[in-house]
This record gives sequence, structure tokens and C-alpha cells, in this order.
Amino acid sequence: MTAQPKDSSARRGTPDATRRNEASRRAIVTAAFELVGEVGYAKLSIEGIAARAGVGKQTIYRWWPSKGAVLFDAFLMFTGDQAPALPDTGDLEADLKTVLRATVEELNDPRFDEPMRALNTEILHDPALAAVYAERLDGPMKELKKQRLRAAQRAGQLSEAVDLDVAIDLLWGPLLNRWLQRSGPLTSGYADAVVETALNGLRPHA
Amino acid sequence: MTAQPKDSSARRGTPDATRRNEASRRAIVTAAFELVGEVGYAKLSIEGIAARAGVGKQTIYRWWPSKGAVLFDAFLMFTGDQAPALPDTGDLEADLKTVLRATVEELNDPRFDEPMRALNTEILHDPALAAVYAERLDGPMKELKKQRLRAAQRAGQLSEAVDLDVAIDLLWGPLLNRWLQRSGPLTSGYADAVVETALNGLRPHA
Repeated sequence: MTAQPKDSSARRGTPDATRRNEASRRAIVTAAFELVGEVGYAKLSIEGIAARAGVGKQTIYRWWPSKGAVLFDAFLMFTGDQAPALPDTGDLEADLKTVLRATVEELNDPRFDEPMRALNTEILHDPALAAVYAERLDGPMKELKKQRLRAAQRAGQLSEAVDLDVAIDLLWGPLLNRWLQRSGPLTSGYADAVVETALNGLRPHA
Repeated sequence: MTAQPKDSSARRGTPDATRRNEASRRAIVTAAFELVGEVGYAKLSIEGIAARAGVGKQTIYRWWPSKGAVLFDAFLMFTGDQAPALPDTGDLEADLKTVLRATVEELNDPRFDEPMRALNTEILHDPALAAVYAERLDGPMKELKKQRLRAAQRAGQLSEAVDLDVAIDLLWGPLLNRWLQRSGPLTSGYADAVVETALNGLRPHA
């Protein structure tokens, strides 16, 4: 039982070890994501994740301090890695409907519902995790949304006077809120209505 | 130890007993509300509530099946009982700013923050509680909001074409979402910007 570095440089250095590490990491975050959907966050455990991933507990603790941290990286892998730019067909209203309908589908997908509720529960009670989430997950997605909205401003389809953070909240906030609080049906029709109402505003039109 | 009705009609019938019951109920829900703010929902217990309220555990179990149910009634007492109609000065924009600024103040109030996060955590994971919340707490508040918006429609300040449920989500959703996800500063300036942007819409104005 001699003291050793957590990750020996001999193993870390070789391409094979790097590939093995990468495969283990993927197995672990995939297991965490699947398990939280099956048993819920309260019953998610490092033991359970290790068993599902076919690794030892120590392998998980070598890379992550907690189950919340594993789950967070799972979200980064499943959503962050593949976050594409928003569509730009030149028609802001149509593009926003496409994106918000996709958001509705994802929120209604049972594979995502429980893991995302688990993540949101953690964020609700953990300001530090909320800050990491804002920086690493929500931030990059928000930047892609802003890019599309700036293009719409240049095309004369979005007011130059609008604060883009407020615009994003107005478009996505109602959907997220309806999902989190289960305050009404979350349908593609609702997504369309949010887009139309946000674009047109609540005031009467002359 | 003979079987007895949970609340004997002899006691229930007298005015004194009714007053005592009412005082006990108030003490219990007040204790639950205070305690959840101090220790968080996970550590809230019926024992703790009973000790704080100066009653026996059985007194609580006589009226409520769980700590979640006690907390829910606390919210009804503190917010539902006193929910007033929205102000109507004849100026929709000014009135909405008044109301949303008050919402921001409440969400930022440490006395409400933790109990409301606890309630929202329960709603997030409990569809049955979400339904009760929608019916007993959110529903009546939503009706008051709709009354104000209908008056605005009659006064020509709100489009007749707008779905009032969508309008409410567009106005309150961003605030709730920013509070729940801690995704940005929750200030009176933000409340004003949400009202202005929702009323004017995102499109450029001619």
C-alpha cells in the first residue's frame, strides 16, 4: 500500500490507455444517464453507476467527486457535444418554431425527462452547480441562440432595441417553466403560440 | 385503547375546540414554513415541525399525511389566503411592472426562497402534487391575472387575438425560470424589461 499518484503518468501517456480511459468515461456517464432515468436521482448511487458501467467504484472517484458531477458530465456529453447552430432559412418565425418544437419533443422524451428533472433539482438547491451549468451548458447554447437572433436583427426581422437575453427568456422560459411545473400541456401547438406571441407582442396591432 | 373517531364530534362541535384546532393548525403550518427555510426540505421532519409548533406528532398526523402536505397548506395560508386582485389603474404596462416587480421582490426574499424551492422540488418530481398545486394555488392566481388581462383587452391595451394562458407564461415564465435556474440577476429592471418586451414583441416596429 504505497502512496501513488491517482493516475500514473506511465499509463496516462500511452495512446491505448487514453482510449481505454475514454471508453470507461463514456460507459460511466452513459450508465449514470440511463440509471437516473430508471431509478430517479435520490436512488442514483456511485455503486449503481459502477455496476452498470462494469467498472470499480474507485475508477469513478478517480474522475468525479460525486454522482451529481457524473450526471453533469453526462449532460455535457449528450447535449453539449452535439449542440448545433440554430437553423437559418432566412425566416425567423419558421426557424424558431422548428427549434422550439424540437425542445418540446426533447422535454417530452421519457429518456430525457427524469435525468433533466434530476439535474434541475440539483441546480434549484445548489448555487455552485447552477453557476457551472450556466457557464458550461446553458452559456454555449445561449450563445448559439444569440447568433441566430443577431442574424435576424441584421435581416430586419428582430428589433434592434431588444435585449437578446430577455428575448431568449421570453421564447424558451415559458416552455421550461411549463415543463418544470407541469402547468399545462407541452405541445408543438404551444411552441408555435409562444413564438407567434413573443414575436408579435401582446399589444393590439393597428 | 378503544377505537374512536379521529376527531370526536363532542370536541369538534364546540366553538372553543374549533378555535383551539385553528390555533394549532396555524402553529403547525407556520412552524413548517419557518423550518424548511432554516434546514431545507430534505431535513424537514414531522418531529421537527411538532417540536417547533409545541404539539404532539399525532396532532399533525391527524390532519396531514406527510410533511409535503403540511408545507403545501403553509403556502396556501401564506400566499393563497391573501392573493389580491391585480392592480388596475387603467395603465396595463404600469400595472404589470408593479406586479412583476413585487414578484421579483418575493422571489428574492430569503423567507420565501427556500420554502418555494422546496415546494418546486416536490412539484418537479410529483405529478400528483403538481396537479393539486395547479388547481388550488396556481389556478386561483392565474384567474386573477386573467381578469386583469381581460380588462386590458376591453380597454384596447391587449390584443384580442392573444391566448391569455400564453400571455401569462410569457410574462411570469421568464421570472420563475430565472429564479429556479439562477440563470441571471433577478432585478426590478429585469421585470420592467420583460413587461416591455412581452408587450411590444420582438419584431421591429415600423
